[in-house]
Amino acid sequence: MEIRPAVDTDFDAIWSFFQPIAAAGETYALDPGIDRANARRYWMEASKRTLVAVERDADGRETVLGSYYIKANAQGPGDHVCNCGYMVALEARGRGVAGQMCEHSLALGRELGFRAMQFNCVVSTNQGAVRLWQRHGFEIVGRLPGAFRHPREGLVDAYVMYRAL
Amino acid sequence: MEIRPAVDTDFDAIWSFFQPIAAAGETYALDPGIDRANARRYWMEASKRTLVAVERDADGRETVLGSYYIKANAQGPGDHVCNCGYMVALEARGRGVAGQMCEHSLALGRELGFRAMQFNCVVSTNQGAVRLWQRHGFEIVGRLPGAFRHPREGLVDAYVMYRAL
Repeated sequence: MEIRPAVDTDFDAIWSFFQPIAAAGETYALDPGIDRANARRYWMEASKRTLVAVERDADGRETVLGSYYIKANAQGPGDHVCNCGYMVALEARGRGVAGQMCEHSLALGRELGFRAMQFNCVVSTNQGAVRLWQRHGFEIVGRLPGAFRHPREGLVDAYVMYRAL
Repeated sequence: MEIRPAVDTDFDAIWSFFQPIAAAGETYALDPGIDRANARRYWMEASKRTLVAVERDADGRETVLGSYYIKANAQGPGDHVCNCGYMVALEARGRGVAGQMCEHSLALGRELGFRAMQFNCVVSTNQGAVRLWQRHGFEIVGRLPGAFRHPREGLVDAYVMYRAL
């Protein structure tokens, strides 16, 4: 697996997993009906760096396994804290793609001069993600009561997670 | 004092306090050198409702004492939580303008169907604001260690504050 900067033509592959992840409405505070153009703006806008995790077959053809973005979480006196979002293709789940993207983003965040990383809305029912981020050094520093409408669980808490870089 | 929707021509007055508040770098995670066009975009963009607190003299001439915006804090399954920002003109400090705008925003938030209000970055050294929001029913639900670079204090914590509507 290799992680490299995303190029425009990667968005076809990204959209193939972005769309069902948004539509499921379980993990991201995104409009479940978001269209392709807005998804592209959201994931690949100018203020973000976007990367893809790919694997190559024997002929050198790439398959995109996942993608992440990194950006400043705030401006001015808050711009030393970065924020990332990660998405993994359904077919690539359980292979450690998210963890590898997270490690990559921590290194890239340091390289870019950020001093901390913050996740603003980790859905509490997404326990796999909560544990994964904890294993990568993040702490739950905030709990937002009922801040996320889960399609089956109703109003559930979301966590703010944070770590120094 | 009256609180009414902002109109385009109010931005002259808003900019007169927005600029020094951003430049001071003590309370808002905004670029201290933000220019007027970007400040206008930030404060009055389409996704926000922007209001002004005004007083009228005997001739009916208005003075803008402060301004606030209200917007959804997230999309989709997070769009029942709103976010506000408040700014008060230097000359109008100590007159309860922020508190009145806060009460107004709580009522407006309910009217717009929001179920909670969240402040993402209340600077911990801004103790007047922290206490004011607490008096208006907000709780500190998160602490972001060193997330704000204060011009004199260095890296200081920021709070996430939250209340149901």
